Amino acid sequence: MNRRGYTAHDIAKMVGGQVVREGNVLASELVPIHQEVKGAISFLRDERFLTEVYRATPRMILTTRQISDKIRHGNHGIVVIENGTSEMYEALALIYDLVTSEDKSLIVPSISPNCEIHPSAVLNGSVHIDDHVVIEAAVSIGSGTRIGSHTKVKSGARIGPNVRVGQRCLIHENAVIGSEGFGFLKSDNGQRIRIPHFASVRIGDQVEIGASTVIDRGSVFDTIIGDGVKLDNLIQIAHGVRIGERTVIAAQSGVSGSTIIGRDCVIGGQVGIAGHLTIADGSQIQAKSGIASSILPEGQKWYGYPALKYLSYLRSYALFKRLPELLDRLERLEKRT
Amino acid sequence: MNRRGYTAHDIAKMVGGQVVREGNVLASELVPIHQEVKGAISFLRDERFLTEVYRATPRMILTTRQISDKIRHGNHGIVVIENGTSEMYEALALIYDLVTSEDKSLIVPSISPNCEIHPSAVLNGSVHIDDHVVIEAAVSIGSGTRIGSHTKVKSGARIGPNVRVGQRCLIHENAVIGSEGFGFLKSDNGQRIRIPHFASVRIGDQVEIGASTVIDRGSVFDTIIGDGVKLDNLIQIAHGVRIGERTVIAAQSGVSGSTIIGRDCVIGGQVGIAGHLTIADGSQIQAKSGIASSILPEGQKWYGYPALKYLSYLRSYALFKRLPELLDRLERLEKRT
Amino acid sequence: MNRRGYTAHDIAKMVGGQVVREGNVLASELVPIHQEVKGAISFLRDERFLTEVYRATPRMILTTRQISDKIRHGNHGIVVIENGTSEMYEALALIYDLVTSEDKSLIVPSISPNCEIHPSAVLNGSVHIDDHVVIEAAVSIGSGTRIGSHTKVKSGARIGPNVRVGQRCLIHENAVIGSEGFGFLKSDNGQRIRIPHFASVRIGDQVEIGASTVIDRGSVFDTIIGDGVKLDNLIQIAHGVRIGERTVIAAQSGVSGSTIIGRDCVIGGQVGIAGHLTIADGSQIQAKSGIASSILPEGQKWYGYPALKYLSYLRSYALFKRLPELLDRLERLEKRT
Repeated sequence: MNRRGYTAHDIAKMVGGQVVREGNVLASELVPIHQEVKGAISFLRDERFLTEVYRATPRMILTTRQISDKIRHGNHGIVVIENGTSEMYEALALIYDLVTSEDKSLIVPSISPNCEIHPSAVLNGSVHIDDHVVIEAAVSIGSGTRIGSHTKVKSGARIGPNVRVGQRCLIHENAVIGSEGFGFLKSDNGQRIRIPHFASVRIGDQVEIGASTVIDRGSVFDTIIGDGVKLDNLIQIAHGVRIGERTVIAAQSGVSGSTIIGRDCVIGGQVGIAGHLTIADGSQIQAKSGIASSILPEGQKWYGYPALKYLSYLRSYALFKRLPELLDRLERLEKRT
Repeated sequence: MNRRGYTAHDIAKMVGGQVVREGNVLASELVPIHQEVKGAISFLRDERFLTEVYRATPRMILTTRQISDKIRHGNHGIVVIENGTSEMYEALALIYDLVTSEDKSLIVPSISPNCEIHPSAVLNGSVHIDDHVVIEAAVSIGSGTRIGSHTKVKSGARIGPNVRVGQRCLIHENAVIGSEGFGFLKSDNGQRIRIPHFASVRIGDQVEIGASTVIDRGSVFDTIIGDGVKLDNLIQIAHGVRIGERTVIAAQSGVSGSTIIGRDCVIGGQVGIAGHLTIADGSQIQAKSGIASSILPEGQKWYGYPALKYLSYLRSYALFKRLPELLDRLERLEKRT
Repeated sequence: MNRRGYTAHDIAKMVGGQVVREGNVLASELVPIHQEVKGAISFLRDERFLTEVYRATPRMILTTRQISDKIRHGNHGIVVIENGTSEMYEALALIYDLVTSEDKSLIVPSISPNCEIHPSAVLNGSVHIDDHVVIEAAVSIGSGTRIGSHTKVKSGARIGPNVRVGQRCLIHENAVIGSEGFGFLKSDNGQRIRIPHFASVRIGDQVEIGASTVIDRGSVFDTIIGDGVKLDNLIQIAHGVRIGERTVIAAQSGVSGSTIIGRDCVIGGQVGIAGHLTIADGSQIQAKSGIASSILPEGQKWYGYPALKYLSYLRSYALFKRLPELLDRLERLEKRT
């Protein structure tokens, strides 16, 4: 992506906010604060994440006056707005529209004459279907969605709205791409109110999405699946997750919201990865493991619940099996001394 | 629900059984023996569950003569029928029809003129679709199902038969509500025969059902999802489960048959909960945990496989990691003494 | 199955290979090397699996000259072909066609006049739908697929291509049968290239496939689900898996590629079973367990991650809970000595 970038003044003007610090950054992509992307704009509503601000690469930050006063150093640009939930989401929606407007203008609604679309498929609103795309029976495609050339969408898949699928992808039966993420705020009377999900899903080239796998669309930042990623069946990818190029995930694994997975990772079946984490490039995660904290060293192998280094888990588990024997030995010692 | 209640004599007459004890209860809802509901009628076919009878709040009990002879005390009303599997299911089907007849009579098959139904949606038999309901492409709705006002059913969802969905619900893509539960009896020649599933699913107001989540219908009692419950994607809710108001369950978790989950619980992703359990109000269950027995104290946090109190699991797991070191220390002690 | 068998010379002629050893076997079914089937033909491309050859019951083996030179003993028939990936897959595709040609010729495309097919169901290409089959709304059935008599296919299910479903089966809502398996080869430039999946899925009689359960079709051997098998919802069955008669699997479990599960097994919910394993007849696997190696003794109960004998896991886990106490005792001993 080579989108146009926006200054702190552009952003402030658009959302009716104020520039606290200009910074030396042009914002071109709305991403979580823990995500490293060139031209990032992130937001901060919760003081607990202030430490993330210090760790973050220079970017534009949208926040409240109160939190802004606590950001003492760093080279971030800072724009502040009113301290209300709805104000924040309205501002983010405007920014999302701004930074993605260029991509959207590139999508000319049209259906290539040389693609094959089953008559029972339903295309809602304006979509762009590229050359040699195959769309099977009972598929539905939402408004604003773009399907790249030579991509095949198997029967019963649901894609949209505003999803971008690259070239030569294979989307298997009953997969769901672009469902609303699972995000709620608690109102004063204890009820949960849906957080708006105005972002979408971007899928690279040569990606496979398994049967009945679900990829939620982002709330304020896109869910992103990199080139060459292969997802098996019945996988859950939550809102705002980003998966690096060529990473492979086996069936029934789940990735919680806003987690960033590196490139060339190999993740076994039934793995669970918590939200807001970063998983280093080349990580290998053994089937059924639970990842509860970020993985920083690259290319390591992990195992367990929660996961340890692979060999550590094996060693500890070998002794777990022998715990009755160890207790015996302990008791014998106690008698002797 | 304020259904009419039925006496032991009403029930006995309907199923061709005999009243053993009248009790002081009017039956208005068919529920499992371990479930506390006012106006409950439950059944008992297996002596192993006799202890449940003593624990149960006063209710009507349908059982066999043989088991009835062993119920020595309690204030339950008791009706006995023939000791055959088919007789029992026939009787239960009649009772289910009786106690739900009032609800059913309230459902007038009709489709509101101000709802939006995609032409590719399939409505089988007589359904009731309330005001401002939106039904997207390729949805199918089974006979006898009622969808409350302002509810939205996303593409590919399957609902029915006889399911009742409340108001302002959001049912995501490819969700399945009302599929036949997974229940079999073994015949004499070792074959598994389907247990009839004549009950259905009742969903409250402001409920969300995630993409590709499956909620089975009950065999003899309804599966019930309370007001304000939020279910994420790819969740399994088995037959006869009851989930209390405002409980939230993250993706890929599963709840086995007849389990009762309290109100305001927060259940992480990939959690498994065994069947026939009771989970107290306000329970918090860490992602990937396995719940193998009932949780009685309210508002506690649980973790592990099978789950322990949260801090206990953390403490034990910290030592699990150190098992190789503990073995070393044990061996050193053995050499010394 | 009583298919015609083929000699080493038949096979060699068909694939343009050479007979190294005739063996005393007629090949009639393409199966993995670790699978015991009468009339098996298997292939070997990787020297790491040479030990499997010695363990295997006598069969026909298709391999390369290089590997063939290392097979010193055994009564297998051996046919060798060129050492290329595409050559091997082309040969296997030819053999698959040969050994299944008889079954295929038995399927006369036709739709019984006494079956009920919803008008919104989509039958692609030539299918065989037997007597009294019910096919609900929005189902799609792929080319070459056969559905046996009295089978019911619930709404939104996707079946095909070339799948054979037996009699009196029940295929629940949104199930997927015959999706392409998750198998890739890495090319020289690090890209993953799809392994061809020309085999399909064979499902016996009186089988149930749960809602949103996915059964992948095989790459070179069929995925096989035996008579009387019951699969709950949201289960993943990978390519080339074989499940024995009357085995029952609860919701959200997953079985990885080429694993063979015996008869009369009972497998709990959320269980994960790794690939290329053999699970003995009558095995019972506790919910949420992870099976990382083959289970050889029949009729045993397993539990844990990775799974141990049931009682062993319980004993060790009881001590896991007490690890803080054991550490205390160890420390007290250390002070004393």
